[in-house]
Amino acid sequence: MTERFSFQLLARDGLARRGEIFTPRGTIRTPAFMPVGTVATVKALYPEQVRDAGADILLGNTYHLMLRPGAERMARLGGLHKFMRWEKPILTDSGGFQVMSLSKIRKINEEGALFQSHLDGSRHMLTPERAIEIQCLLGSDIQMQLDECIELPSERREVERAMELSLRWAERSRRAFEAQQASGAAGQGQAMFGIVQGGTDAELRRRSAEALVAMDLEGYAVGGLAVGEGHDLMLATLDATLPSLPETKPRYLMGVGTPLDLIEAVRRGIDMFDCVLPTRNGRHGLAFTWNGPVNLRNAVHAEDTSPLDEASTCPAARDYSRAYLHHLIRSGEYLGAMLLSWVNTAFYQELMASMRAAIEEGRFDAWAEETKARIARK
Amino acid sequence: MTERFSFQLLARDGLARRGEIFTPRGTIRTPAFMPVGTVATVKALYPEQVRDAGADILLGNTYHLMLRPGAERMARLGGLHKFMRWEKPILTDSGGFQVMSLSKIRKINEEGALFQSHLDGSRHMLTPERAIEIQCLLGSDIQMQLDECIELPSERREVERAMELSLRWAERSRRAFEAQQASGAAGQGQAMFGIVQGGTDAELRRRSAEALVAMDLEGYAVGGLAVGEGHDLMLATLDATLPSLPETKPRYLMGVGTPLDLIEAVRRGIDMFDCVLPTRNGRHGLAFTWNGPVNLRNAVHAEDTSPLDEASTCPAARDYSRAYLHHLIRSGEYLGAMLLSWVNTAFYQELMASMRAAIEEGRFDAWAEETKARIARK
Repeated sequence: MTERFSFQLLARDGLARRGEIFTPRGTIRTPAFMPVGTVATVKALYPEQVRDAGADILLGNTYHLMLRPGAERMARLGGLHKFMRWEKPILTDSGGFQVMSLSKIRKINEEGALFQSHLDGSRHMLTPERAIEIQCLLGSDIQMQLDECIELPSERREVERAMELSLRWAERSRRAFEAQQASGAAGQGQAMFGIVQGGTDAELRRRSAEALVAMDLEGYAVGGLAVGEGHDLMLATLDATLPSLPETKPRYLMGVGTPLDLIEAVRRGIDMFDCVLPTRNGRHGLAFTWNGPVNLRNAVHAEDTSPLDEASTCPAARDYSRAYLHHLIRSGEYLGAMLLSWVNTAFYQELMASMRAAIEEGRFDAWAEETKARIARK
Repeated sequence: MTERFSFQLLARDGLARRGEIFTPRGTIRTPAFMPVGTVATVKALYPEQVRDAGADILLGNTYHLMLRPGAERMARLGGLHKFMRWEKPILTDSGGFQVMSLSKIRKINEEGALFQSHLDGSRHMLTPERAIEIQCLLGSDIQMQLDECIELPSERREVERAMELSLRWAERSRRAFEAQQASGAAGQGQAMFGIVQGGTDAELRRRSAEALVAMDLEGYAVGGLAVGEGHDLMLATLDATLPSLPETKPRYLMGVGTPLDLIEAVRRGIDMFDCVLPTRNGRHGLAFTWNGPVNLRNAVHAEDTSPLDEASTCPAARDYSRAYLHHLIRSGEYLGAMLLSWVNTAFYQELMASMRAAIEEGRFDAWAEETKARIARK
């Protein structure tokens, strides 16, 4: 694994980009959607199903994995890929977001984030250096800097403070990652991305982006969105942020989103996404299809023998009746969650493949309008 | 589907029997273990996994299915096989056992069992005739008479009363099933089995068996066991019961059991079993293997990179590390239940296949002693 991490743009259509991220573990076709494997499993799916759905990369959550099974233990077990039987690339977040959203108490200071595990109350300190160390122990291909995610709306002064702290943490993360590479604990095929913060304030976003770009990182994420600000404000923030990011590096919109979110973000030049929506909604009985979302809990499906999509290549969408899916979801059966998580994971990958083809063929806007009319109800 | 239901003995070894039950939906190799598909799904498994594990037949629960999705609805949807995508034979119980164990209130009288749904409190009357009608609406290949299952230990007078009521219900069930066949609602390839009752009282069991045999049914089940009487008393009851049953008909021990139970019951001449143990234990982290049971919750597995059984043909037993299974079970993840239910369902089918081969080769006793030493810890 001496080959270098790299990104290549293959086509553009307006601001939308079709590219490839090269890693020694495999090539990631962009725009890419990363299924979320929170605790080393994409919930209710076998790894082969995620792969066969077309995912080139998945996401693991540092917060969860550092608590269970633990980073050092994972390293002794041979790393996250081997542990969860996923040979392709894995991106890990830094743990920062879950520290804010899940842990019991936390104290953020210049040094890092002190928190208590939501599992057993144990205390942990997550610093930029430790977040990188953990991600190296996991064996993550694309690592994220530690950042501070704040709730929106917040006062501008608070947003600015967190953004500036995140920049200082980005610099420390960069140095920590380079030290890991220098020591051989990380390879040249692994990369670390910075995270643009700044809430929905265009000027703060621009400053954040420019400071990160000055660090010459391998990729740039837009963080701190999809936290309740709404679709339009999220897009406006992308419009304000993306011009400050270099064409030559991948751009990752964290934690997003609905099919409509993905389409509009790709239109603006985003290359990567992750979101729990396909699997979480699947567990709750909501299926994404090319004819719009279908809530299988609804009684209207109780005697409907048609499948969700008879033209789908996903067996879960093609071979099982809506009546059966309705019954499984109503009954709280494992198989309901299994089938609908599969349907949605496959749909999200089909959606990305369709976007990639539309960009290659220079018809993204027409594709987007047509597709939104069909599927992208929010 | 004009072919008749039939049973053929292919080999004997002592009292153990190797046979085949023929149904228009497929041949059932006996001794057979039927995975339990309670509410039209074998929990946490895709139907293909159950089939590929080697199951020739599975069991559906009339009580659950009559409440949700409902028998008439199931018939409108094309029957249980189509609904759950299982083309091979299905045996359904009569609902009696769950009425006793699950429903809120019940009143048993000569006519049948009045109960309230555990789901919504709705009232239902289950008579022998209605139990058969429901099973025909589901499209069950092997149907069971309604019987009264009582708790053990009970006073002999109470056991006798329930046994005699079950005999009268058997006769009504037989007439109801024949009427369904005469009307075309059931085919000649479908069958109805009677259920021997009588607790652990040898004389009551004998009387029950003889009365059922006089009805000339297509098969005979031993019911009312595995309700807490213990392994030895269960086997003693089989010893007292099975000589009264004809060699020419299949014998089904209901709701049993552990690997040791299965081996000892086959040794005594039982042909069919069903039990939730493989899937329920799997969900709880207990794996059955050829080297004995493995409790994946135990911390000893936390850094064990070996699979449960590298020689297994079941991917779940062969390809995933114990450390990963431990992590999934500890984390309460779907995939833990999915993998261990798969492991156990495959193991039970391997166990039955191994028993069938041992009987064919006339070495059942030697096989049983060797196997028990390896695997059959209670």
